[in-house]
Amino acid sequence: MAAELHRQWIYRRQPEGVVGPEHYELAERPLDTSLSAGEVLVRTRIVSVDPYMRINQSAKPTFNPEPHPLGTVQAAGAVGQVMASAAPGLAEGDWVEGMLGWQTHARMHASLLRKLDPAAAPVSTALGVLGMPGRTAWFGLTEAGRPRAGEVVVVSGAAGAVGSLVAQFAKRHGCRVLGIAGGAAKCAWLREALGLDWAIDYKAYRTADELGAAIRAAAGGVDVYFDNVGGWISDAVIPLINRRARIVICGSISQYSGGLDTPELGPRFLHHMLYQRATLQGILARDYLHRMDEMLAIVGPWVARREIVFEETVLQGFDRLPAALNALFTGDHRGKLLVEV
Amino acid sequence: MAAELHRQWIYRRQPEGVVGPEHYELAERPLDTSLSAGEVLVRTRIVSVDPYMRINQSAKPTFNPEPHPLGTVQAAGAVGQVMASAAPGLAEGDWVEGMLGWQTHARMHASLLRKLDPAAAPVSTALGVLGMPGRTAWFGLTEAGRPRAGEVVVVSGAAGAVGSLVAQFAKRHGCRVLGIAGGAAKCAWLREALGLDWAIDYKAYRTADELGAAIRAAAGGVDVYFDNVGGWISDAVIPLINRRARIVICGSISQYSGGLDTPELGPRFLHHMLYQRATLQGILARDYLHRMDEMLAIVGPWVARREIVFEETVLQGFDRLPAALNALFTGDHRGKLLVEV
Repeated sequence: MAAELHRQWIYRRQPEGVVGPEHYELAERPLDTSLSAGEVLVRTRIVSVDPYMRINQSAKPTFNPEPHPLGTVQAAGAVGQVMASAAPGLAEGDWVEGMLGWQTHARMHASLLRKLDPAAAPVSTALGVLGMPGRTAWFGLTEAGRPRAGEVVVVSGAAGAVGSLVAQFAKRHGCRVLGIAGGAAKCAWLREALGLDWAIDYKAYRTADELGAAIRAAAGGVDVYFDNVGGWISDAVIPLINRRARIVICGSISQYSGGLDTPELGPRFLHHMLYQRATLQGILARDYLHRMDEMLAIVGPWVARREIVFEETVLQGFDRLPAALNALFTGDHRGKLLVEV
Repeated sequence: MAAELHRQWIYRRQPEGVVGPEHYELAERPLDTSLSAGEVLVRTRIVSVDPYMRINQSAKPTFNPEPHPLGTVQAAGAVGQVMASAAPGLAEGDWVEGMLGWQTHARMHASLLRKLDPAAAPVSTALGVLGMPGRTAWFGLTEAGRPRAGEVVVVSGAAGAVGSLVAQFAKRHGCRVLGIAGGAAKCAWLREALGLDWAIDYKAYRTADELGAAIRAAAGGVDVYFDNVGGWISDAVIPLINRRARIVICGSISQYSGGLDTPELGPRFLHHMLYQRATLQGILARDYLHRMDEMLAIVGPWVARREIVFEETVLQGFDRLPAALNALFTGDHRGKLLVEV
């Protein structure tokens, strides 16, 4: 019997602008099923596509001192099923989550995997609301944003994986929430499915001043700005901050396709921070990894009771992984972008 | 006998760029010496010239919703001597500090004045190290900067009224301190008189990248950036921040002569805040007014023992007040800029 194929997307070339299939190469080889003690062989099922992956391809130092190494499997979080196990506690068929990468199979030490309970929640949530994006949203909002009931929280990228959760978590804190997203359909979804107080389609405005005027007309001033996007959308929001506002920098997706290596120019805004004695803080999911249990204890029951909308956009096919990463930056998806492989 | 003249500088025109004598008008009238109960008549002696005065002339909302009203005496902190008193606790000859404004005499309720002890410290310190600039430096550094021994603190405008105090306070916290100032003489003073670890003359560099390279070569990364200047100097410093750096926005003097109304463009930098999970916070002296006693309890004894350098640049003459405000932005003075009138 021919051995099963082990397929891998190898990261070959550093993108200067938009990342796409031309930066990857597909490799195939017979699957090696040998295991050392403590290891398991995992069949990748659902792959997460996340903006941080493009940051990690920047030529300049980022949150990591070195970029993603060329000539290696593209790193990525994923959910899979155990095919074979030499580890106690994991058996064939078990669902796990970990950094499996862009490959059909991964041989990993069991300590690097989180075992999932498919009865508790859909396993895909381990890559979304009950995973890294959920942790980012929860601690970014509560620890850096420090929302108070009655305050106005503005979320950019509000229809995205993190933004759609931040918006809902802020509603649960008693805040009035304005979501910024691209397109009327996303905005209708934000209002109707997520129950936001306001949703504004940034594509309907030509300048930061015009967008800012629309935000001010709706919500007045801004107490918490949870920013996933940066660029001209932030140029619109920052001048609207209230006294002692908190700005949470969770991402700058508008800048990832080149702007990290050669920053674009934008209007200086530090005087607004001064006038309002505001705080701006950058946050990363990894800073709260050790506090995952705190988030799961609160958000897990909400998910189990279906009180949180955790939208997923699911693409099909291992071959589409590079295109899916590219699609992250076109903004056509809603909620968490996943690829079933 | 002819009545003494009451001279006042009236703020007449809003500046668009640099402020100067053309925005003021000198008014003179006989001095009215009548007093209501609780009031005193003060002869202005030393007037403080501060950057916030120019912020308050911006056409757009700043920390105050309305700009300084036209047709009124220019507001300013000052030290004076009581000429006549209808208030208990203040007698002729007493030294006081308060918002006397740009006028030779001020009639004020005693509750708006702070009585000074000329034996404890030179009365001019009430406008500097033991006044608003000292409070700004102390709480801006300790509360927003949160310095730890061994960390690198970078101060822009390090030869200025606030910057020179922040630099010394940071040294007392056990930090390694790099001061940025304009000109070799200021830098020599920072090293020799203030004992800073490094002083860098920004005028010796043409671009933010070159200035940044010099800072990095001297001090490595930056843990606390105390910013009084903004503009391209901050463009040089911010990319050098270390993990969990704190950036304190105390001022943006490079932007005050027009940039508050029409922001200039600069490189976007939020990705650095993200990478380093850094915090940026705007602070104002007024936020710590209620904690003045805490600052005086610590810094007062240092001043009494002459352990703090509190340099003053003193101009002479009531007629020179508008020119002195203008001089604040040319950067030729060192330490606190005062006008004896």
